Amino acid sequence: MTIETVSLNRSHGGTQGVYRHPSRATGTDMTFSVFVPPHQSGAKLPVVWYLSGLTCTHANVTEKGEYRKACAELGLIFVAPDTSPRGEGVAADPDGSWDFGLGAGFYVDATQPPFSRNYRMWSYVTDELPELVSSAFPADPKRQSIMGHSMGGHGALTIALSKPDGYRAASAFSPIVAPSQVPWGIKALGGYLGSNKEAWRKHDAVALIEDGARFSDFLIDIGDADPFLKEQLRPELLERACAKANIPLKLRSHSGYDHSYYFISTFMEDHLRWHAARLDRSGR
Amino acid sequence: MTIETVSLNRSHGGTQGVYRHPSRATGTDMTFSVFVPPHQSGAKLPVVWYLSGLTCTHANVTEKGEYRKACAELGLIFVAPDTSPRGEGVAADPDGSWDFGLGAGFYVDATQPPFSRNYRMWSYVTDELPELVSSAFPADPKRQSIMGHSMGGHGALTIALSKPDGYRAASAFSPIVAPSQVPWGIKALGGYLGSNKEAWRKHDAVALIEDGARFSDFLIDIGDADPFLKEQLRPELLERACAKANIPLKLRSHSGYDHSYYFISTFMEDHLRWHAARLDRSGR
Repeated sequence: MTIETVSLNRSHGGTQGVYRHPSRATGTDMTFSVFVPPHQSGAKLPVVWYLSGLTCTHANVTEKGEYRKACAELGLIFVAPDTSPRGEGVAADPDGSWDFGLGAGFYVDATQPPFSRNYRMWSYVTDELPELVSSAFPADPKRQSIMGHSMGGHGALTIALSKPDGYRAASAFSPIVAPSQVPWGIKALGGYLGSNKEAWRKHDAVALIEDGARFSDFLIDIGDADPFLKEQLRPELLERACAKANIPLKLRSHSGYDHSYYFISTFMEDHLRWHAARLDRSGR
Repeated sequence: MTIETVSLNRSHGGTQGVYRHPSRATGTDMTFSVFVPPHQSGAKLPVVWYLSGLTCTHANVTEKGEYRKACAELGLIFVAPDTSPRGEGVAADPDGSWDFGLGAGFYVDATQPPFSRNYRMWSYVTDELPELVSSAFPADPKRQSIMGHSMGGHGALTIALSKPDGYRAASAFSPIVAPSQVPWGIKALGGYLGSNKEAWRKHDAVALIEDGARFSDFLIDIGDADPFLKEQLRPELLERACAKANIPLKLRSHSGYDHSYYFISTFMEDHLRWHAARLDRSGR
Protein backbone atom coordinates (compact mmCIF):
# COMPACT_ATOMS: atom_id res chain seq x y z
CA MET A 1 0.00 0.00 0.00
CA THR A 2 1.43 3.35 -1.00
CA ILE A 3 0.61 6.58 0.72
CA GLU A 4 1.74 9.96 -0.54
CA THR A 5 2.14 12.74 2.01
CA VAL A 6 0.38 15.87 0.78
CA SER A 7 1.23 18.03 3.79
CA LEU A 8 2.52 17.65 7.32
CA ASN A 9 2.20 20.33 9.99
CA ARG A 10 3.11 20.34 13.63
CA SER A 11 0.11 21.35 15.71
CA HIS A 12 -0.84 21.18 19.38
CA GLY A 13 2.20 19.02 20.08
CA GLY A 14 1.27 16.41 17.49
CA THR A 15 1.31 16.08 13.74
CA GLN A 16 -1.50 16.98 11.34
CA GLY A 17 -1.01 15.18 8.06
CA VAL A 18 -2.89 15.05 4.79
CA TYR A 19 -2.34 11.97 2.62
CA ARG A 20 -3.31 10.58 -0.77
CA HIS A 21 -3.45 6.97 -1.91
CA PRO A 22 -4.87 4.88 -4.72
CA SER A 23 -7.99 3.18 -3.35
CA ARG A 24 -8.94 -0.32 -4.45
CA ALA A 25 -12.46 0.23 -3.12
CA THR A 26 -13.25 3.34 -5.15
CA GLY A 27 -10.80 2.84 -8.00
CA THR A 28 -9.65 6.44 -7.58
CA ASP A 29 -7.05 8.34 -5.63
CA MET A 30 -8.45 9.28 -2.22
CA THR A 31 -7.30 12.03 0.13
CA PHE A 32 -7.67 11.90 3.91
CA SER A 33 -6.24 13.60 6.97
CA VAL A 34 -4.79 12.11 10.15
CA PHE A 35 -3.85 13.88 13.36
CA VAL A 36 -1.41 11.94 15.51
CA PRO A 37 -1.15 13.30 19.05
CA PRO A 38 2.10 13.43 21.00
CA HIS A 39 2.83 9.91 22.25
CA GLN A 40 5.58 7.64 23.48
CA SER A 41 7.53 5.76 20.87
CA GLY A 42 5.98 2.34 20.27
CA ALA A 43 2.58 3.26 21.75
CA LYS A 44 -0.60 2.15 19.99
CA LEU A 45 -3.29 4.81 20.19
CA PRO A 46 -7.08 4.72 19.91
CA VAL A 47 -8.56 6.08 16.68
CA VAL A 48 -11.56 8.38 16.25
CA TRP A 49 -13.11 8.39 12.78
CA TYR A 50 -14.84 11.58 11.66
CA LEU A 51 -17.17 11.41 8.65
CA SER A 52 -18.01 14.73 7.01
CA GLY A 53 -21.21 16.06 5.54
CA LEU A 54 -22.47 16.98 2.08
CA THR A 55 -20.08 19.08 -0.06
CA CYS A 56 -17.18 18.54 2.35
CA THR A 57 -13.76 16.99 1.88
CA HIS A 58 -11.28 15.99 4.59
CA ALA A 59 -10.30 19.66 4.73
CA ASN A 60 -13.39 21.14 6.40
CA VAL A 61 -13.02 19.48 9.78
CA THR A 62 -9.24 19.52 9.52
CA GLU A 63 -9.25 23.30 9.25
CA LYS A 64 -12.36 24.25 11.23
CA GLY A 65 -13.09 21.37 13.60
CA GLU A 66 -10.93 22.50 16.56
CA TYR A 67 -10.23 18.90 17.56
CA ARG A 68 -6.46 18.89 17.87
CA LYS A 69 -6.10 20.35 21.36
CA ALA A 70 -8.45 17.77 22.89
CA CYS A 71 -7.00 14.90 20.83
CA ALA A 72 -3.51 15.89 22.01
CA GLU A 73 -4.66 15.91 25.62
CA LEU A 74 -6.62 12.66 25.35
CA GLY A 75 -4.13 10.79 23.18
CA LEU A 76 -6.49 10.20 20.25
CA ILE A 77 -5.66 9.72 16.59
CA PHE A 78 -8.26 11.59 14.50
CA VAL A 79 -8.94 10.48 10.91
CA ALA A 80 -11.04 12.42 8.39
CA PRO A 81 -11.79 10.73 5.03
CA ASP A 82 -13.25 12.40 1.97
CA THR A 83 -17.01 12.16 1.30
CA SER A 84 -16.95 10.59 -2.16
CA PRO A 85 -14.62 9.41 -4.89
CA ARG A 86 -13.38 12.20 -7.13
CA GLY A 87 -11.41 12.58 -10.33
CA GLU A 88 -11.60 12.03 -14.03
CA GLY A 89 -14.26 9.53 -15.04
CA VAL A 90 -16.10 9.54 -11.71
CA ALA A 91 -19.82 9.94 -12.33
CA ALA A 92 -21.35 13.13 -10.96
CA ASP A 93 -24.97 14.10 -10.42
CA PRO A 94 -26.38 14.68 -13.91
CA ASP A 95 -28.19 17.72 -12.51
CA GLY A 96 -24.97 19.13 -11.09
CA SER A 97 -26.49 19.52 -7.64
CA TRP A 98 -24.49 19.30 -4.41
CA ASP A 99 -26.55 16.69 -2.58
CA PHE A 100 -25.76 13.68 -4.77
CA GLY A 101 -22.62 12.41 -6.49
CA LEU A 102 -19.36 14.26 -5.85
CA GLY A 103 -19.04 15.24 -2.20
CA ALA A 104 -22.15 13.23 -1.38
CA GLY A 105 -21.24 9.53 -1.27
CA PHE A 106 -23.58 8.84 1.67
CA TYR A 107 -21.26 6.09 2.95
CA VAL A 108 -22.81 3.31 0.89
CA ASP A 109 -21.53 0.89 -1.76
CA ALA A 110 -23.57 1.89 -4.79
CA THR A 111 -25.24 -0.89 -6.75
CA GLN A 112 -26.61 1.27 -9.56
CA PRO A 113 -24.57 2.17 -12.64
CA PRO A 114 -22.80 4.42 -13.33
CA PHE A 115 -22.26 5.03 -9.60
CA SER A 116 -21.51 1.41 -8.71
CA ARG A 117 -18.09 1.67 -10.35
CA ASN A 118 -16.55 4.22 -7.93
CA TYR A 119 -19.04 5.05 -5.20
CA ARG A 120 -17.99 2.42 -2.68
CA MET A 121 -17.58 4.61 0.39
CA TRP A 122 -18.91 1.95 2.79
CA SER A 123 -16.11 -0.45 1.90
CA TYR A 124 -13.62 2.37 1.81
CA VAL A 125 -14.43 3.80 5.22
CA THR A 126 -15.13 0.56 7.11
CA ASP A 127 -12.53 -1.71 5.56
CA GLU A 128 -9.82 -0.33 3.29
CA LEU A 129 -8.95 2.90 5.08
CA PRO A 130 -8.91 1.38 8.61
CA GLU A 131 -6.49 -1.25 7.34
CA LEU A 132 -4.31 1.44 5.79
CA VAL A 133 -4.38 3.60 8.92
CA SER A 134 -3.50 0.66 11.13
CA SER A 135 -0.53 -0.20 8.95
CA ALA A 136 0.86 3.31 8.51
CA PHE A 137 0.13 5.04 11.83
CA PRO A 138 0.56 4.14 15.52
CA ALA A 139 -3.08 3.03 15.72
CA ASP A 140 -4.65 0.37 17.91
CA PRO A 141 -7.19 -1.36 15.60
CA LYS A 142 -9.02 -2.76 18.62
CA ARG A 143 -9.82 0.70 19.93
CA GLN A 144 -11.73 2.64 17.30
CA SER A 145 -14.75 4.91 17.48
CA ILE A 146 -16.75 6.94 14.98
CA MET A 147 -18.47 10.28 14.72
CA GLY A 148 -19.75 12.48 11.94
CA HIS A 149 -21.69 15.53 10.85
CA SER A 150 -24.97 15.59 8.92
CA MET A 151 -24.52 13.03 6.10
CA GLY A 152 -21.44 11.93 8.05
CA GLY A 153 -23.56 11.56 11.17
CA HIS A 154 -25.72 9.20 9.15
CA GLY A 155 -22.54 7.36 8.19
CA ALA A 156 -21.32 7.14 11.78
CA LEU A 157 -24.65 5.88 13.14
CA THR A 158 -25.22 3.28 10.42
CA ILE A 159 -21.64 2.01 10.62
CA ALA A 160 -21.73 1.73 14.42
CA LEU A 161 -25.08 -0.07 14.33
CA SER A 162 -23.86 -2.46 11.61
CA LYS A 163 -20.50 -3.18 13.24
CA PRO A 164 -21.03 -2.73 16.98
CA ASP A 165 -17.95 -4.83 17.75
CA GLY A 166 -15.76 -2.64 15.56
CA TYR A 167 -16.39 0.66 17.29
CA ARG A 168 -16.40 1.44 20.98
CA ALA A 169 -18.24 4.75 20.73
CA ALA A 170 -20.39 6.64 18.26
CA SER A 171 -21.64 10.21 18.21
CA ALA A 172 -22.92 12.76 15.75
CA PHE A 173 -23.49 16.44 15.11
CA SER A 174 -26.76 17.21 13.32
CA PRO A 175 -27.08 13.74 11.77
CA ILE A 176 -29.46 12.53 9.09
CA VAL A 177 -31.01 9.74 11.15
CA ALA A 178 -33.63 8.32 8.77
CA PRO A 179 -32.52 8.88 5.16
CA SER A 180 -35.32 6.71 3.80
CA GLN A 181 -37.79 9.29 5.09
CA VAL A 182 -36.19 12.60 4.07
CA PRO A 183 -35.46 14.30 0.70
CA TRP A 184 -31.64 14.16 0.82
CA GLY A 185 -31.69 10.50 1.73
CA ILE A 186 -34.43 9.44 -0.68
CA LYS A 187 -32.50 11.01 -3.56
CA ALA A 188 -29.18 9.50 -2.49
CA LEU A 189 -30.31 5.98 -1.53
CA GLY A 190 -32.52 5.80 -4.62
CA GLY A 191 -29.67 6.91 -6.84
CA TYR A 192 -27.01 4.68 -5.36
CA LEU A 193 -29.06 1.62 -4.31
CA GLY A 194 -32.04 1.67 -6.66
CA SER A 195 -35.76 1.84 -6.09
CA ASN A 196 -36.14 -1.25 -3.89
CA LYS A 197 -36.48 0.33 -0.48
CA GLU A 198 -35.65 -2.92 1.31
CA ALA A 199 -32.01 -2.34 0.26
CA TRP A 200 -32.12 1.09 1.91
CA ARG A 201 -32.78 -0.23 5.41
CA LYS A 202 -29.17 -1.24 6.01
CA HIS A 203 -28.23 2.38 5.44
CA ASP A 204 -30.83 4.02 7.63
CA ALA A 205 -30.09 4.27 11.36
CA VAL A 206 -33.75 4.25 12.39
CA ALA A 207 -34.57 1.28 10.11
CA LEU A 208 -31.50 -0.62 11.36
CA ILE A 209 -32.69 -0.23 14.94
CA GLU A 210 -36.20 -1.27 13.96
CA ASP A 211 -34.66 -4.34 12.33
CA GLY A 212 -32.79 -5.27 15.50
CA ALA A 213 -29.40 -3.54 15.31
CA ARG A 214 -28.08 -2.28 18.62
CA PHE A 215 -25.24 -0.12 19.96
CA SER A 216 -24.06 0.65 23.49
CA ASP A 217 -25.05 4.33 23.50
CA PHE A 218 -25.06 7.48 21.35
CA LEU A 219 -24.24 11.14 21.91
CA ILE A 220 -25.96 13.51 19.49
CA ASP A 221 -25.85 17.31 19.42
CA ILE A 222 -28.14 19.44 17.30
CA GLY A 223 -28.68 23.17 16.98
CA ASP A 224 -32.21 24.49 17.17
CA ALA A 225 -31.41 27.13 14.51
CA ASP A 226 -30.26 24.45 12.05
CA PRO A 227 -32.18 25.12 8.82
CA PHE A 228 -32.19 21.40 7.95
CA LEU A 229 -33.48 20.19 11.30
CA LYS A 230 -37.14 19.62 10.55
CA GLU A 231 -37.03 18.44 6.95
CA GLN A 232 -33.75 16.49 6.66
CA LEU A 233 -32.39 15.58 10.09
CA ARG A 234 -35.48 14.74 12.14
CA PRO A 235 -33.72 13.66 15.35
CA GLU A 236 -37.07 12.81 16.94
CA LEU A 237 -37.26 9.71 14.74
CA LEU A 238 -34.03 8.39 16.24
CA GLU A 239 -35.15 9.37 19.71
CA ARG A 240 -38.29 7.29 19.29
CA ALA A 241 -36.44 4.30 17.83
CA CYS A 242 -33.78 4.35 20.57
CA ALA A 243 -36.39 4.63 23.31
CA LYS A 244 -38.28 1.64 21.91
CA ALA A 245 -35.08 -0.40 21.58
CA ASN A 246 -33.66 0.66 24.94
CA ILE A 247 -30.55 2.21 23.36
CA PRO A 248 -29.29 4.99 25.63
CA LEU A 249 -29.30 8.22 23.61
CA LYS A 250 -27.92 11.48 24.94
CA LEU A 251 -29.59 13.97 22.57
CA ARG A 252 -28.82 17.63 23.26
CA SER A 253 -30.46 20.59 21.53
CA HIS A 254 -28.48 23.84 21.64
CA SER A 255 -30.28 27.15 21.46
CA GLY A 256 -29.27 29.41 18.58
CA TYR A 257 -26.76 27.04 17.00
CA ASP A 258 -26.92 26.15 13.30
CA HIS A 259 -25.48 23.49 10.97
CA SER A 260 -21.99 24.99 10.59
CA TYR A 261 -18.53 24.26 11.90
CA TYR A 262 -19.07 27.16 14.32
CA PHE A 263 -21.49 24.76 15.99
CA ILE A 264 -19.42 21.61 15.57
CA SER A 265 -16.24 23.18 16.95
CA THR A 266 -18.12 24.36 20.02
CA PHE A 267 -19.03 20.82 21.09
CA MET A 268 -16.16 18.86 19.54
CA GLU A 269 -14.30 18.61 22.84
CA ASP A 270 -17.37 17.14 24.56
CA HIS A 271 -17.59 14.47 21.86
CA LEU A 272 -13.91 13.61 22.08
CA ARG A 273 -14.19 13.21 25.86
CA TRP A 274 -17.20 10.93 25.33
CA HIS A 275 -15.17 8.85 22.89
CA ALA A 276 -12.04 8.82 25.06
CA ALA A 277 -13.97 7.56 28.07
CA ARG A 278 -15.22 4.59 26.03
CA LEU A 279 -11.95 3.97 24.18
CA ASP A 280 -9.95 3.86 27.39
CA ARG A 281 -11.93 1.00 28.88
CA SER A 282 -9.75 -2.08 28.63
CA GLY A 283 -11.31 -5.05 26.89
CA ARG A 284 -15.03 -4.95 26.17
CA MET B 1 -22.10 54.56 9.81
CA THR B 2 -23.75 51.62 8.13
CA ILE B 3 -22.74 48.03 8.70
CA GLU B 4 -24.12 45.14 6.71
CA THR B 5 -24.19 41.74 8.37
CA VAL B 6 -22.71 39.12 6.04
CA SER B 7 -23.13 36.18 8.41
CA LEU B 8 -23.85 35.51 12.05
CA ASN B 9 -23.18 32.18 13.76
CA ARG B 10 -23.52 31.09 17.33
CA SER B 11 -20.25 29.60 18.56
CA HIS B 12 -18.75 28.74 21.92
CA GLY B 13 -21.59 30.54 23.67
CA GLY B 14 -21.00 33.81 21.82
CA THR B 15 -21.63 35.21 18.37
CA GLN B 16 -19.25 35.09 15.42
CA GLY B 17 -20.20 37.75 12.91
CA VAL B 18 -18.84 38.85 9.56
CA TYR B 19 -19.66 42.40 8.49
CA ARG B 20 -19.18 44.72 5.53
CA HIS B 21 -19.14 48.52 5.47
CA PRO B 22 -18.12 51.37 3.17
CA SER B 23 -14.80 52.69 4.49
CA ARG B 24 -13.95 56.36 4.29
CA ALA B 25 -10.27 55.53 4.86
CA THR B 26 -9.89 53.16 1.92
CA GLY B 27 -12.73 54.39 -0.26
CA THR B 28 -13.88 50.80 -0.70
CA ASP B 29 -16.18 48.36 1.00
CA MET B 30 -14.28 46.52 3.73
CA THR B 31 -15.15 43.17 5.32
CA PHE B 32 -14.20 42.23 8.89
CA SER B 33 -15.17 39.68 11.52
CA VAL B 34 -16.07 40.17 15.18
CA PHE B 35 -16.55 37.52 17.85
CA VAL B 36 -18.58 38.72 20.81
CA PRO B 37 -18.32 36.38 23.81
CA PRO B 38 -21.23 35.63 26.12
CA HIS B 39 -21.68 38.63 28.42
CA GLN B 40 -24.13 40.37 30.67
CA SER B 41 -26.43 42.89 29.04
CA GLY B 42 -24.92 46.36 29.22
CA ALA B 43 -21.36 45.15 29.82
CA LYS B 44 -18.46 46.79 27.98
CA LEU B 45 -15.83 44.25 26.99
CA PRO B 46 -12.13 44.50 26.17
CA VAL B 47 -11.20 44.17 22.50
CA VAL B 48 -8.35 42.15 20.97
CA TRP B 49 -7.35 43.16 17.45
CA TYR B 50 -5.90 40.47 15.20
CA LEU B 51 -4.06 41.55 12.05
CA SER B 52 -3.55 38.87 9.41
CA GLY B 53 -0.63 38.10 7.14
CA LEU B 54 0.04 38.23 3.41
CA THR B 55 -2.70 36.79 1.16
CA CYS B 56 -5.18 36.54 4.05
CA THR B 57 -8.59 38.07 4.58
CA HIS B 58 -10.60 38.20 7.81
CA ALA B 59 -11.62 34.62 7.04
CA ASN B 60 -8.34 32.79 7.71
CA VAL B 61 -8.16 33.41 11.44
CA THR B 62 -11.94 33.35 11.76
CA GLU B 63 -12.05 29.80 10.42
CA LYS B 64 -8.69 28.40 11.54
CA GLY B 65 -7.55 30.50 14.51
CA GLU B 66 -9.24 28.51 17.31
CA TYR B 67 -9.69 31.66 19.41
CA ARG B 68 -13.37 31.49 20.28
CA LYS B 69 -13.22 29.10 23.22
CA ALA B 70 -10.61 31.19 25.03
CA CYS B 71 -12.31 34.49 24.14
CA ALA B 72 -15.57 33.12 25.52
CA GLU B 73 -13.90 32.09 28.74
CA LEU B 74 -11.92 35.32 29.12
CA GLY B 75 -14.68 37.68 27.98
CA LEU B 76 -12.78 39.13 25.02
CA ILE B 77 -14.15 40.63 21.82
CA PHE B 78 -11.95 39.50 18.89
CA VAL B 79 -11.81 41.61 15.72
CA ALA B 80 -10.18 40.52 12.46
CA PRO B 81 -9.94 43.12 9.66
CA ASP B 82 -8.99 42.44 6.05
CA THR B 83 -5.37 42.94 4.92
CA SER B 84 -5.93 45.45 2.10
CA PRO B 85 -8.63 47.32 0.22
CA ARG B 86 -10.26 45.26 -2.53
CA GLY B 87 -12.70 45.77 -5.34
CA GLU B 88 -13.06 47.37 -8.73
CA GLY B 89 -10.53 50.11 -9.38
CA VAL B 90 -8.21 49.19 -6.51
CA ALA B 91 -4.62 49.05 -7.76
CA ALA B 92 -2.96 45.65 -7.62
CA ASP B 93 0.66 44.67 -7.95
CA PRO B 94 1.51 45.14 -11.65
CA ASP B 95 3.46 41.87 -11.46
CA GLY B 96 0.45 40.05 -10.03
CA SER B 97 2.47 38.69 -7.11
CA TRP B 98 1.01 37.93 -3.69
CA ASP B 99 3.38 39.96 -1.53
CA PHE B 100 2.32 43.44 -2.61
CA GLY B 101 -1.01 45.08 -3.39
CA LEU B 102 -4.18 43.05 -2.83
CA GLY B 103 -3.95 41.04 0.40
CA ALA B 104 -0.72 42.81 1.29
CA GLY B 105 -1.52 46.30 2.57
CA PHE B 106 1.25 46.17 5.19
CA TYR B 107 -0.78 48.38 7.55
CA VAL B 108 0.50 51.69 6.16
CA ASP B 109 -1.11 54.73 4.56
CA ALA B 110 0.42 54.68 1.09
CA THR B 111 1.82 57.96 -0.22
CA GLN B 112 2.71 56.74 -3.71
CA PRO B 113 0.18 56.70 -6.56
CA PRO B 114 -1.72 54.71 -7.60
CA PHE B 115 -1.70 53.03 -4.16
CA SER B 116 -2.23 56.22 -2.16
CA ARG B 117 -5.85 56.35 -3.25
CA ASN B 118 -7.07 53.20 -1.47
CA TYR B 119 -4.21 51.65 0.50
CA ARG B 120 -4.80 53.44 3.80
CA MET B 121 -4.78 50.45 6.14
CA TRP B 122 -3.03 52.33 8.97
CA SER B 123 -5.88 54.83 9.24
CA TYR B 124 -8.42 52.10 8.71
CA VAL B 125 -7.13 49.76 11.41
CA THR B 126 -6.07 52.34 14.03
CA ASP B 127 -8.83 54.90 13.61
CA GLU B 128 -11.87 54.15 11.49
CA LEU B 129 -12.54 50.53 12.39
CA PRO B 130 -11.98 50.97 16.17
CA GLU B 131 -14.51 53.81 16.09
CA LEU B 132 -16.97 51.62 14.19
CA VAL B 133 -16.47 48.66 16.51
CA SER B 134 -16.93 50.82 19.60
CA SER B 135 -20.18 52.21 18.23
CA ALA B 136 -21.68 48.93 17.03
CA PHE B 137 -20.51 46.34 19.56
CA PRO B 138 -20.35 46.13 23.37
CA ALA B 139 -16.70 47.25 23.31
CA ASP B 140 -14.74 49.20 25.90
CA PRO B 141 -12.57 51.57 23.82
CA LYS B 142 -10.25 52.09 26.80
CA ARG B 143 -9.35 48.41 26.91
CA GLN B 144 -7.89 47.35 23.58
CA SER B 145 -4.93 45.20 22.64
CA ILE B 146 -3.40 44.03 19.40
CA MET B 147 -1.81 40.92 17.92
CA GLY B 148 -1.00 39.64 14.47
CA HIS B 149 0.68 37.09 12.26
CA SER B 150 3.61 37.65 9.90
CA MET B 151 2.77 40.91 8.04
CA GLY B 152 0.06 41.34 10.68
CA GLY B 153 2.65 40.83 13.41
CA HIS B 154 4.52 43.72 11.83
CA GLY B 155 1.29 45.70 11.95
CA ALA B 156 0.63 44.85 15.59
CA LEU B 157 4.15 45.75 16.73
CA THR B 158 4.35 49.04 14.83
CA ILE B 159 0.87 50.12 15.92
CA ALA B 160 1.56 49.27 19.57
CA LEU B 161 4.90 51.12 19.50
CA SER B 162 3.33 54.15 17.79
CA LYS B 163 0.27 54.28 20.05
CA PRO B 164 1.35 52.80 23.39
CA ASP B 165 -1.50 54.52 25.19
CA GLY B 166 -4.06 53.01 22.82
CA TYR B 167 -3.26 49.35 23.42
CA ARG B 168 -2.67 47.55 26.70
CA ALA B 169 -0.99 44.49 25.23
CA ALA B 170 0.73 43.44 22.02
CA SER B 171 1.86 40.06 20.75
CA ALA B 172 2.69 38.36 17.50
CA PHE B 173 3.07 35.04 15.75
CA SER B 174 6.00 34.89 13.32
CA PRO B 175 6.17 38.67 12.81
CA ILE B 176 8.14 40.64 10.25
CA VAL B 177 10.05 42.77 12.77
CA ALA B 178 12.28 44.87 10.51
CA PRO B 179 10.62 45.32 7.12
CA SER B 180 13.26 47.87 6.01
CA GLN B 181 15.83 45.09 6.11
CA VAL B 182 14.00 42.17 4.44
CA PRO B 183 12.74 41.50 0.89
CA TRP B 184 8.97 41.51 1.62
CA GLY B 185 9.26 44.77 3.52
CA ILE B 186 11.60 46.52 1.13
CA LYS B 187 9.21 45.80 -1.74
CA ALA B 188 6.14 46.88 0.22
CA LEU B 189 7.47 49.98 1.95
CA GLY B 190 9.20 51.11 -1.25
CA GLY B 191 6.02 50.59 -3.24
CA TYR B 192 3.66 52.25 -0.78
CA LEU B 193 5.92 54.95 0.77
CA GLY B 194 8.52 55.64 -1.93
CA SER B 195 12.26 55.40 -2.01
CA ASN B 196 13.05 57.73 0.89
CA LYS B 197 13.86 55.24 3.61
CA GLU B 198 13.40 57.81 6.37
CA ALA B 199 9.65 57.48 5.77
CA TRP B 200 9.91 53.73 6.34
CA ARG B 201 11.15 54.01 9.93
CA LYS B 202 7.68 54.73 11.33
CA HIS B 203 6.58 51.38 9.90
CA ASP B 204 9.46 49.24 11.10
CA ALA B 205 9.31 47.94 14.67
CA VAL B 206 13.07 47.74 15.09
CA ALA B 207 13.60 51.24 13.67
CA LEU B 208 10.80 52.64 15.85
CA ILE B 209 12.51 51.27 18.95
CA GLU B 210 15.87 52.64 17.78
CA ASP B 211 14.17 56.01 17.37
CA GLY B 212 12.84 55.95 20.92
CA ALA B 213 9.41 54.26 20.75
CA ARG B 214 8.58 52.07 23.74
CA PHE B 215 5.92 49.54 24.82
CA SER B 216 5.28 47.76 28.10
CA ASP B 217 6.20 44.26 26.90
CA PHE B 218 5.78 41.87 23.99
CA LEU B 219 4.99 38.18 23.59
CA ILE B 220 6.26 36.64 20.35
CA ASP B 221 6.06 33.02 19.20
CA ILE B 222 7.95 31.64 16.25
CA GLY B 223 8.36 28.16 14.79
CA ASP B 224 11.84 26.94 14.02
CA ALA B 225 10.57 25.15 10.89
CA ASP B 226 9.13 28.41 9.50
CA PRO B 227 10.51 28.72 5.96
CA PHE B 228 10.45 32.53 6.22
CA LEU B 229 12.29 32.77 9.53
CA LYS B 230 15.80 33.62 8.42
CA GLU B 231 15.16 35.77 5.37
CA GLN B 232 11.93 37.63 6.14
CA LEU B 233 11.12 37.50 9.86
CA ARG B 234 14.51 37.78 11.59
CA PRO B 235 13.30 37.87 15.21
CA GLU B 236 16.88 38.30 16.43
CA LEU B 237 16.79 41.91 15.21
CA LEU B 238 13.86 42.66 17.50
CA GLU B 239 15.48 40.76 20.33
CA ARG B 240 18.56 42.94 20.05
CA ALA B 241 16.56 46.19 19.81
CA CYS B 242 14.36 45.29 22.79
CA ALA B 243 17.36 44.31 24.91
CA LYS B 244 19.07 47.61 24.17
CA ALA B 245 15.91 49.59 24.92
CA ASN B 246 14.99 47.57 28.02
CA ILE B 247 11.65 46.48 26.57
CA PRO B 248 10.68 43.11 28.09
CA LEU B 249 10.31 40.60 25.25
CA LYS B 250 9.07 37.05 25.76
CA LEU B 251 10.32 35.40 22.57
CA ARG B 252 9.58 31.69 22.27
CA SER B 253 10.86 29.38 19.55
CA HIS B 254 8.86 26.19 19.03
CA SER B 255 10.53 23.11 17.63
CA GLY B 256 9.06 21.75 14.41
CA TYR B 257 6.37 24.42 13.98
CA ASP B 258 5.96 26.33 10.73
CA HIS B 259 4.26 29.52 9.50
CA SER B 260 0.72 28.10 9.24
CA TYR B 261 -2.49 28.32 11.23
CA TYR B 262 -1.67 24.87 12.60
CA PHE B 263 1.06 26.75 14.50
CA ILE B 264 -0.99 29.86 15.32
CA SER B 265 -3.95 27.89 16.66
CA THR B 266 -1.64 25.91 18.96
CA PHE B 267 -0.50 29.01 20.83
CA MET B 268 -3.53 31.27 20.37
CA GLU B 269 -4.85 30.53 23.85
CA ASP B 270 -1.52 31.52 25.43
CA HIS B 271 -1.66 34.83 23.60
CA LEU B 272 -5.23 35.52 24.62
CA ARG B 273 -4.38 34.84 28.27
CA TRP B 274 -1.42 37.23 27.97
CA HIS B 275 -3.76 39.87 26.56
CA ALA B 276 -6.52 39.21 29.10
CA ALA B 277 -4.11 39.61 32.02
CA ARG B 278 -3.14 43.05 30.74
CA LEU B 279 -6.63 44.09 29.68
CA ASP B 280 -8.11 43.23 33.04
CA ARG B 281 -5.87 45.61 35.00
CA SER B 282 -8.05 48.53 36.02
CA GLY B 283 -6.76 51.92 34.95
CA ARG B 284 -3.20 52.17 33.68
